[in-house]
Amino acid sequence: MLVVMRTDATTAQVDAVCDAIRALGFTPVPMPGEQRTAVGLIGNDGQVDGAHIGGMGGVAQVINVTKPFKQVSREWKPENTIVTIAPGVAFGGNDIVVMAGPCSVENEQQILTAARAVRAAGATALRGGAYKPRSSPYSFQGLGSKGLELLALARRETGLPIVTEAMDEAGAHEVAEIADMIQIGARNMQNYSLLRTVGKIGKPVLLKRGMSATITDLLLSAEYILAEGNPHVVLCERGLRGFDSSTRNVFDVTAIPVVQRASHLPMVADPSHGTGVRALVTPMARAAVAAGADGILVEVHPTPERALSDGAQSLYPDQFTKLMLELRTIAEAIGRHVAPSPGTASVSVG
Amino acid sequence: MLVVMRTDATTAQVDAVCDAIRALGFTPVPMPGEQRTAVGLIGNDGQVDGAHIGGMGGVAQVINVTKPFKQVSREWKPENTIVTIAPGVAFGGNDIVVMAGPCSVENEQQILTAARAVRAAGATALRGGAYKPRSSPYSFQGLGSKGLELLALARRETGLPIVTEAMDEAGAHEVAEIADMIQIGARNMQNYSLLRTVGKIGKPVLLKRGMSATITDLLLSAEYILAEGNPHVVLCERGLRGFDSSTRNVFDVTAIPVVQRASHLPMVADPSHGTGVRALVTPMARAAVAAGADGILVEVHPTPERALSDGAQSLYPDQFTKLMLELRTIAEAIGRHVAPSPGTASVSVG
Amino acid sequence: MLVVMRTDATTAQVDAVCDAIRALGFTPVPMPGEQRTAVGLIGNDGQVDGAHIGGMGGVAQVINVTKPFKQVSREWKPENTIVTIAPGVAFGGNDIVVMAGPCSVENEQQILTAARAVRAAGATALRGGAYKPRSSPYSFQGLGSKGLELLALARRETGLPIVTEAMDEAGAHEVAEIADMIQIGARNMQNYSLLRTVGKIGKPVLLKRGMSATITDLLLSAEYILAEGNPHVVLCERGLRGFDSSTRNVFDVTAIPVVQRASHLPMVADPSHGTGVRALVTPMARAAVAAGADGILVEVHPTPERALSDGAQSLYPDQFTKLMLELRTIAEAIGRHVAPSPGTASVSVG
Amino acid sequence: MLVVMRTDATTAQVDAVCDAIRALGFTPVPMPGEQRTAVGLIGNDGQVDGAHIGGMGGVAQVINVTKPFKQVSREWKPENTIVTIAPGVAFGGNDIVVMAGPCSVENEQQILTAARAVRAAGATALRGGAYKPRSSPYSFQGLGSKGLELLALARRETGLPIVTEAMDEAGAHEVAEIADMIQIGARNMQNYSLLRTVGKIGKPVLLKRGMSATITDLLLSAEYILAEGNPHVVLCERGLRGFDSSTRNVFDVTAIPVVQRASHLPMVADPSHGTGVRALVTPMARAAVAAGADGILVEVHPTPERALSDGAQSLYPDQFTKLMLELRTIAEAIGRHVAPSPGTASVSVG
Repeated sequence: MLVVMRTDATTAQVDAVCDAIRALGFTPVPMPGEQRTAVGLIGNDGQVDGAHIGGMGGVAQVINVTKPFKQVSREWKPENTIVTIAPGVAFGGNDIVVMAGPCSVENEQQILTAARAVRAAGATALRGGAYKPRSSPYSFQGLGSKGLELLALARRETGLPIVTEAMDEAGAHEVAEIADMIQIGARNMQNYSLLRTVGKIGKPVLLKRGMSATITDLLLSAEYILAEGNPHVVLCERGLRGFDSSTRNVFDVTAIPVVQRASHLPMVADPSHGTGVRALVTPMARAAVAAGADGILVEVHPTPERALSDGAQSLYPDQFTKLMLELRTIAEAIGRHVAPSPGTASVSVG
Repeated sequence: MLVVMRTDATTAQVDAVCDAIRALGFTPVPMPGEQRTAVGLIGNDGQVDGAHIGGMGGVAQVINVTKPFKQVSREWKPENTIVTIAPGVAFGGNDIVVMAGPCSVENEQQILTAARAVRAAGATALRGGAYKPRSSPYSFQGLGSKGLELLALARRETGLPIVTEAMDEAGAHEVAEIADMIQIGARNMQNYSLLRTVGKIGKPVLLKRGMSATITDLLLSAEYILAEGNPHVVLCERGLRGFDSSTRNVFDVTAIPVVQRASHLPMVADPSHGTGVRALVTPMARAAVAAGADGILVEVHPTPERALSDGAQSLYPDQFTKLMLELRTIAEAIGRHVAPSPGTASVSVG
Repeated sequence: MLVVMRTDATTAQVDAVCDAIRALGFTPVPMPGEQRTAVGLIGNDGQVDGAHIGGMGGVAQVINVTKPFKQVSREWKPENTIVTIAPGVAFGGNDIVVMAGPCSVENEQQILTAARAVRAAGATALRGGAYKPRSSPYSFQGLGSKGLELLALARRETGLPIVTEAMDEAGAHEVAEIADMIQIGARNMQNYSLLRTVGKIGKPVLLKRGMSATITDLLLSAEYILAEGNPHVVLCERGLRGFDSSTRNVFDVTAIPVVQRASHLPMVADPSHGTGVRALVTPMARAAVAAGADGILVEVHPTPERALSDGAQSLYPDQFTKLMLELRTIAEAIGRHVAPSPGTASVSVG
Repeated sequence: MLVVMRTDATTAQVDAVCDAIRALGFTPVPMPGEQRTAVGLIGNDGQVDGAHIGGMGGVAQVINVTKPFKQVSREWKPENTIVTIAPGVAFGGNDIVVMAGPCSVENEQQILTAARAVRAAGATALRGGAYKPRSSPYSFQGLGSKGLELLALARRETGLPIVTEAMDEAGAHEVAEIADMIQIGARNMQNYSLLRTVGKIGKPVLLKRGMSATITDLLLSAEYILAEGNPHVVLCERGLRGFDSSTRNVFDVTAIPVVQRASHLPMVADPSHGTGVRALVTPMARAAVAAGADGILVEVHPTPERALSDGAQSLYPDQFTKLMLELRTIAEAIGRHVAPSPGTASVSVG
């Protein structure tokens, strides 16, 4: 923490700030400058809440130097965390994991067709929503428990592990019984009760970044899960709230390397929600992999024009097949590989 | 819904869109223009999800004309909804309700001192957090049940009704037993399970706008509560995520009249979280009332420099007293009144 | 400047940073913490550009402590600057200056009618565009020189001083010959050649905040004008780019007290561009005055439905008359006065 | 244009809107719905300014259907525009043009060293600022005319064409005499006088997107240049204003395919300004190419730690060399090529 005094701060005001720092159990270090004095701290362990000092007389600004998160930090654990969700399906190593499938599970035929199609194109995992958070209470809310059963069926048929969303604590326990990875959606990124619940459950978690969450906010939310003893967390960029209606969101591709530098946790990206427009999904999936993503999440639907949700951003199966080919070459360009589908040998480009 | 075709759209593509609209149960109205054709809909009841049409061949854009919310709309119910949380304490009429108190309940002496101070200055209700959503798992998380008991004690001592936050479904039931109004925080604005729960409980709800929520998003979240049969909802602006670190948030004062035009629900504002800086709370509280807010939420702490949370944005009691005087005159300027404390006669300016 | 080292920074890396600071002519002050070391500076005069240190080995972050602006700062000049644009019309004192008129000067009858109407309602100055920056090259671009002549005519008829925009250097000289105050629009806030030009001209300048400018950016742009020897600068909030299409912009009312705390320059607000919707102009003009604005800029048109630009946000004359009454009472509530029209005695409420 | 009426709009109000549309010279098409009526237009040529209709009685919203730009639109000209700035150096075809060099020209040795280094690594053009727009009037503002001479010298030495910025009309003429492409910076994207000037000059223009410009704003600014008869315009994404200080800007990679779908003009990206952090430039340059950029702009400095501007975001020459190798493979993955340095044969990967 650094306390910057106003240029007209009196000596008494600087002394009062030093006293307040001592009261918090730390040693103040005043640094007089030509224009103003700043007061540093020695011994800050990152848990100091010195916000109230910002309101003291003569104080211009309080700057937090130490990052507020701990266990998620790369400074805490320098080597990458590997999150394994099924035999041979791991995030955070050299492999890039492709999770594909429809936005929502709609019925048996739809999910089986989708699962087989993405498996045939080389996807590593199956995504699909049974519980759907929708802005409107009148929109389709997902099949619920029935949807989870259909996902389990699709896994038996294709061997693909399952990633699906939980929206509340009861749902998290139910999802955990079937899914290989529990997704926490962007709207729930700061639903701390839910974060604690999936922390206690201990299954791998895919934590999506909120629409206006800073990287620090995202890492602090992950910290809630790790603080409960669950280190199996994969982070996901899925688009920020933006001012231009030409896309659904601003897909913050740069967040990928930013998170990877700050944290040891794997970082993936969702170009489908990130853009909201089918024609943009392919170029932005390529961009995410080129930026170093540890995986991507892509919506693929056998018949997007009949989808119950997100039809406009779902790829057709043949578009997804072509994308997979491009991704393999881009991965090679940066010395990585697209993870093979479970049960198959690794696919190489050359 | 209006479907705008590309200038190079073929007749077959326009026909396909018309067919897709018929398949949804509506009548298409093609409108040929000099540059392009647009296709309108007759009979749209607001629940159509035509997003998939956006992905059809030759389509440039799909524009939703009908607002996606219903019961919260002023078009659904033209007259203001009055939300009464205690005898004589009502939102949505001519009175402006001032809710004041500390960010968190810290101990008996603190909450009683704060409650008496804001009562003496003329506040209408007491705010104070027992359950606190904090970005970091290592920050003070509130006193929980003990905090609720202390709030009840403060109500017995001062007669002020209580507004306090619930963070999850179990907490909502507990808070509902003591509080006069259940607050849903900005981070939980799209926690739909929680919204449904407070909808079923039926107590008055203070729903805060999320940091990057559009007005439509806010109204749709309120719609979740009304859809469960609970019409006692008050909305609250508390600041948007912004790009300038000189304030904690961008306090969107304009949201007050925008919401009041779109909805019959009362709309209040929280200048404390909206700005995050003590010196800005007073001018922005005045601005909110001048803009037509049906109430304000202000953090007041007996000793802000010792607060366990939000000290830098809490007013000193004497600052709050001065603010109340200014608010009364501003309310008069627009033909309204600051609501009196429960059990007192209305205070008039002249 | 404060250089925060990574927790794994080596002693050699800390030493290298200290050397780099010495190379800039300052004294480094290393502050070892439990987690990491930070290095402060003694003697920073605010012009140090230490950005390159951010790229050195072992550096986590470089934090600028000293504000980059000087002459515009309240720390440089504690008392308010008073900007006088005509006899009796001054910004920055107790008076609140109301500038009103149409978006564009369209013809003689329109501008005279508008000028008389706003004068009758009590406006202090006349606003109106002769040169109009428009997003599209095909939109009406203003009457140019002819518009300036008509503004001069309106001044002769009503006594109201004139505020109008200049878009380039040649235009600035032409506008300066007629106008009492030269407006620099939001799109040109960082057109440094133009800022230098109006700095040299020396006439009062109304500098509008850019749509995504921080307060620091705004003050630095003003610094360009003061650095050329022209201290007669009034700053103006007119709305930020936002994500919600329910208003044209996000009107950042809080910027008013933020600027007034940071700078001695007067700060006004433009609720017409700030909201873009007629029905929102009145409540937000009230909010701006309640927040402490030193003036407001309001679009008023005799027949908004026939305006060549900005018709949807222009007040009808009778709406403006009613607004003036409300503003007078709100000004009283905070111990200020709405400035009288030139040539009239001050209007008091009571 | 589509005019959406309120649900409580009267027949007289609908009629008034129809009359207003006829007064603009178009045919109104009322579409009654279950909830409300909407009124469409037949014959809209894109230049209608119907904003004032938004303020009429009973109107809920006015939606613009036709895009406000013309000549820049892909609907106006379906095939890609090829912008050639020197023999063999062309944007908009299959080649990806890499423009590299220091932020500012600092002295003869620096610019020659930089030019030779980027040439050796395979860059196609040299970037470097002679006139620098800086937020602070006290920062280094560039060498001006002397800088232009040094750029010309570097071109003679290396054969690389030159891209450099002009900040005002006088400067544009001076820059045009030396540069192969005139850059208009983000801060001047809506400096319409400058846009018209470079439109008249007729040289190739690199137009950077403003920090809060929508894609429509960017295309309308380009339209100003084309409207003056200059079709040689290349657009550039360089980062949006964002809320997270972990990067300098939000680099909107998605803008690349969005612009390419909407316009026939080439679209490039600047990952150096887009991120502001050296370690992020390489992954984001790769992402831009993977997303389909027609070129990139990269800051490379022989000794970034001694740069007079933007040192923290400049690559070291060896980092740039490695980046070029990766870019070539990524280009292959999508069927494109990195353009060779002028005077060399094309470099192929395999």
